[in-house]
Amino acid sequence: MTRLVAIDWGTSSLRGALLDASGAVLEERSDARGILKVPAGGFPAVFESLFAEWMQPGGTRCLISGMAGSKQGWVEAPYCACPAGRVEVGRRIIDIDVPPGSPRISVVPGLSNEHDGVPDVMRGEEVQIFGAMALMDIDEGVFVLPGTHNKWATVKKGRVTGFRTFMTGEFYALLSQHSILARTLDADAPLDEAAFVEGVMRADNGQGLLHNAFGTRTLALFERMATQELASYLSGLLIGEELRTQSLHAFGEVVLIGSSALTQRYTLALRATGTATRMLGAEATWAGLHALSGFLDTGRMPS
Amino acid sequence: MTRLVAIDWGTSSLRGALLDASGAVLEERSDARGILKVPAGGFPAVFESLFAEWMQPGGTRCLISGMAGSKQGWVEAPYCACPAGRVEVGRRIIDIDVPPGSPRISVVPGLSNEHDGVPDVMRGEEVQIFGAMALMDIDEGVFVLPGTHNKWATVKKGRVTGFRTFMTGEFYALLSQHSILARTLDADAPLDEAAFVEGVMRADNGQGLLHNAFGTRTLALFERMATQELASYLSGLLIGEELRTQSLHAFGEVVLIGSSALTQRYTLALRATGTATRMLGAEATWAGLHALSGFLDTGRMPS
Repeated sequence: MTRLVAIDWGTSSLRGALLDASGAVLEERSDARGILKVPAGGFPAVFESLFAEWMQPGGTRCLISGMAGSKQGWVEAPYCACPAGRVEVGRRIIDIDVPPGSPRISVVPGLSNEHDGVPDVMRGEEVQIFGAMALMDIDEGVFVLPGTHNKWATVKKGRVTGFRTFMTGEFYALLSQHSILARTLDADAPLDEAAFVEGVMRADNGQGLLHNAFGTRTLALFERMATQELASYLSGLLIGEELRTQSLHAFGEVVLIGSSALTQRYTLALRATGTATRMLGAEATWAGLHALSGFLDTGRMPS
Repeated sequence: MTRLVAIDWGTSSLRGALLDASGAVLEERSDARGILKVPAGGFPAVFESLFAEWMQPGGTRCLISGMAGSKQGWVEAPYCACPAGRVEVGRRIIDIDVPPGSPRISVVPGLSNEHDGVPDVMRGEEVQIFGAMALMDIDEGVFVLPGTHNKWATVKKGRVTGFRTFMTGEFYALLSQHSILARTLDADAPLDEAAFVEGVMRADNGQGLLHNAFGTRTLALFERMATQELASYLSGLLIGEELRTQSLHAFGEVVLIGSSALTQRYTLALRATGTATRMLGAEATWAGLHALSGFLDTGRMPS
């Protein structure tokens, strides 16, 4: 039986799992050494220190998704243009040079598409979408992957037909930590659902984020909102701004893939606007890498 | 003849001018000690070090606008609610306690208004608007004051009837210096007008700032836009996002007040969307403080 070392190697962190031949998770591991923290030429050493013990000769393979396949990563796996499904992506998996006799290590390409002359890209999320489809046994839908740079993707007949990135997570970090709003809000306050939903609904008032964000300051200045509620309100304004641009009435349901803290927030926001959701976490990544591993050439055995 | 020491004391810097009785500028002075850099109780000393030589007994008065009148300033001058013109603001000017025999120092209040339960505020811009009206001999119009926190104000019959703040300048600073976009763009590149206008027009595509901002990265990644053009494109996206929410077709002309670097950018953006502009700079501040000085009580002479 072949075991798979499945890795999602992102910008600021990485996660790995050892899967058995059926795709079941035997062990998980995570680390803070995202690609930005790996020195030039340092990928083999980081990989070795984290996963050597899982990489047994004679049947183990490794498949890596995420930013490790970017120009700044371990080896560049050029983007696969949409529409693209498991077959198109599987065909463009790239092998990393390893010493003879070592288990194979391969990298999944990301996806690209273009809207009105502006390209858009993802790396890693395509694997989570393929995994979600496998786990839910569906081949179409709208998939939302919240994070620093959120993705909204549409899938038809098993292929991602198009997607867009939203910098919602990064805007929230910048505004809550570095803007004038940081002086009044408490970024560590727990989620206040009422303030969050108030922000979501406010975002649709036609005045735009540049104006509505300033309200986070004036509501505090005039003591209309408690300090503990401001971060939730701002988060709601940002996620609401993201939802504002979607044709939500056209979606029966949205599949959310990500950390439970984020997918729960999006569920709250989407329900407030009348859209149903289903939530998935890391299991989508492992299922996606397992599904893609079927496309690895099994003819080349360790010598 | 009475001379006026006119000061606009902002958050991050201050500017002062010595005006003669007709309002003509005799001398100007600026300093980096905005209110955030003045230690607790330190306002009299900073004022003294900068303006003592202008403050001659027997006829000199001083009028200060801007954040010096806020809670974090020298003395709090509570906001004046809209609609408000020179008369309403003039009546709420606050005197600072000074030693007997010293020239009077007074502080102009800011303005407040409210939209759907969210307050909005300005401090200092109201003086620039009053000054622009005096210089242009008009008593109505749409006034735009670009800066860290831009203001769009509507004036009818000499009174500001309503206004909104947009965090456009602060968003630009955060994104161009601290976001992932900072890695590819050159914030010091000179304005590229074509890239700027491309950003302005793109902002109206219905996809929102959170998505469009990411295009600044992907256009660079796919070498569709030169590094030198990216900052201008991002600036255009932000200013375009601000214009997107205005009913520009209803405005015959917009009066822009601010630094020439910013008012020129807004003029480019507004012309691209078919709106005419007129531009004013610091002269609007001095004219506004001179106009308000007519409301100072002249009965209390130095003892």
